[in-house]
Amino acid sequence: MIAPAVILSHPQMGENVGAAARAMKNFGLSELILIAPKFEWPNDRAQILASGAADILKSAKLYPTAAEALAPFNLVLATTARDRDILKEIHTPEAAARRLRVSSQAGAHTAILFGGERAGLDNNEMSLCDAVITIPTAEFSSLNLGQAVLLLGYEWLKSADTTAPVRTRSTIAVPATRTELTGLFEHLERELEAAQYFFPPAKRETMVRNIRAMIMRSGLSDQEARTIRGMIVALVRNKYRGQK
Amino acid sequence: MIAPAVILSHPQMGENVGAAARAMKNFGLSELILIAPKFEWPNDRAQILASGAADILKSAKLYPTAAEALAPFNLVLATTARDRDILKEIHTPEAAARRLRVSSQAGAHTAILFGGERAGLDNNEMSLCDAVITIPTAEFSSLNLGQAVLLLGYEWLKSADTTAPVRTRSTIAVPATRTELTGLFEHLERELEAAQYFFPPAKRETMVRNIRAMIMRSGLSDQEARTIRGMIVALVRNKYRGQK
Repeated sequence: MIAPAVILSHPQMGENVGAAARAMKNFGLSELILIAPKFEWPNDRAQILASGAADILKSAKLYPTAAEALAPFNLVLATTARDRDILKEIHTPEAAARRLRVSSQAGAHTAILFGGERAGLDNNEMSLCDAVITIPTAEFSSLNLGQAVLLLGYEWLKSADTTAPVRTRSTIAVPATRTELTGLFEHLERELEAAQYFFPPAKRETMVRNIRAMIMRSGLSDQEARTIRGMIVALVRNKYRGQK
Repeated sequence: MIAPAVILSHPQMGENVGAAARAMKNFGLSELILIAPKFEWPNDRAQILASGAADILKSAKLYPTAAEALAPFNLVLATTARDRDILKEIHTPEAAARRLRVSSQAGAHTAILFGGERAGLDNNEMSLCDAVITIPTAEFSSLNLGQAVLLLGYEWLKSADTTAPVRTRSTIAVPATRTELTGLFEHLERELEAAQYFFPPAKRETMVRNIRAMIMRSGLSDQEARTIRGMIVALVRNKYRGQK
């Protein structure tokens, strides 16, 4: 599977190409294509901003026109900020990433096309694209080129990312056995009983249930359950000492 | 509902605070808090990079310590690049945005905490946070502060965004009626029949089905269906003219 190429049409500032290359590297994209950049190439400002992604700049290809740059691609999605008067499907970045991944996996050579900083994409460039991507924003919608590449790259990586939405570090997070937890509960309740904490007695059952729920909610490891038991022992010892 | 605050701990470069403010504005966040910035405040570089988000910088609050900055918050999620040896839940940005939104909607005052450019968050700061956010990246994982704020802001906005994953502009995209489509199909098939296009005749049905599928796939509007019929008329006329 070939990851999508990033094609920057008529970029005006080398900095933005550098930032785009760096964002590509962050999210596993490597093929960079420039259409008629408005500056000398190679470009010093691009080099500085690309820090760590020099290889992407080095292998970047240049073409004078969109027709030549887009020629070998099977699927091209174009990013646009403003609405265009052309009847094409508009994708969210997430939907675009899914479509690009499905096509790439089927063997297609895919690309994401970004317009220049000021003018965006012209109608001829748009006509060569299969569909459009618009990044959702608040009223303040101006994203720079590097940011747009970053967000699309992020969605590309996410479209294959299998990280659990919420996880704990498995190396240190061995969840406690029920034995350990029951030991903790009974230890705590025994000491609370001895301290005449459960009052009135009729509420004991509810109080125990609430305390257990509070403890369970923190998802203790074996070690942490033992730590709490140690604290109980210490607190009780201190209390008896105080009463002497 | 109050949107999450963005808290930057010990930022080193004014530029990054400016970029963060701009990213916040893009995605509907407005409360910026700085913990002991390592530069003069207000800051010229921040102003320049914030272009359009000067109001966020202007209302930013400064605190000398994390304890003071975090004091009023009910839920604080901390971004970290590297794994930490502390047993806290790790969220993807998407899961974090959902959690922040659910809490905010329930009336909680929430925040996202970002560490300084070089050192990240210290253990004391981490201990004041409910959970951790890690942004998924390729092997090249260094995101700058502005980029991290951008991605979290983007997920915050997305968590309430109801934009259809794929849509067409409703103002110009009135999908064709079945009458219009049937008219087009029959017109085209009649002319193809007259031109003896369907060969061998036994394959006619399959050929018609494939042509209709190809046309349906482009999701024509009424106007586009009529445009195609106009093209058929023109092509047929031309053919007869050529045969004279």
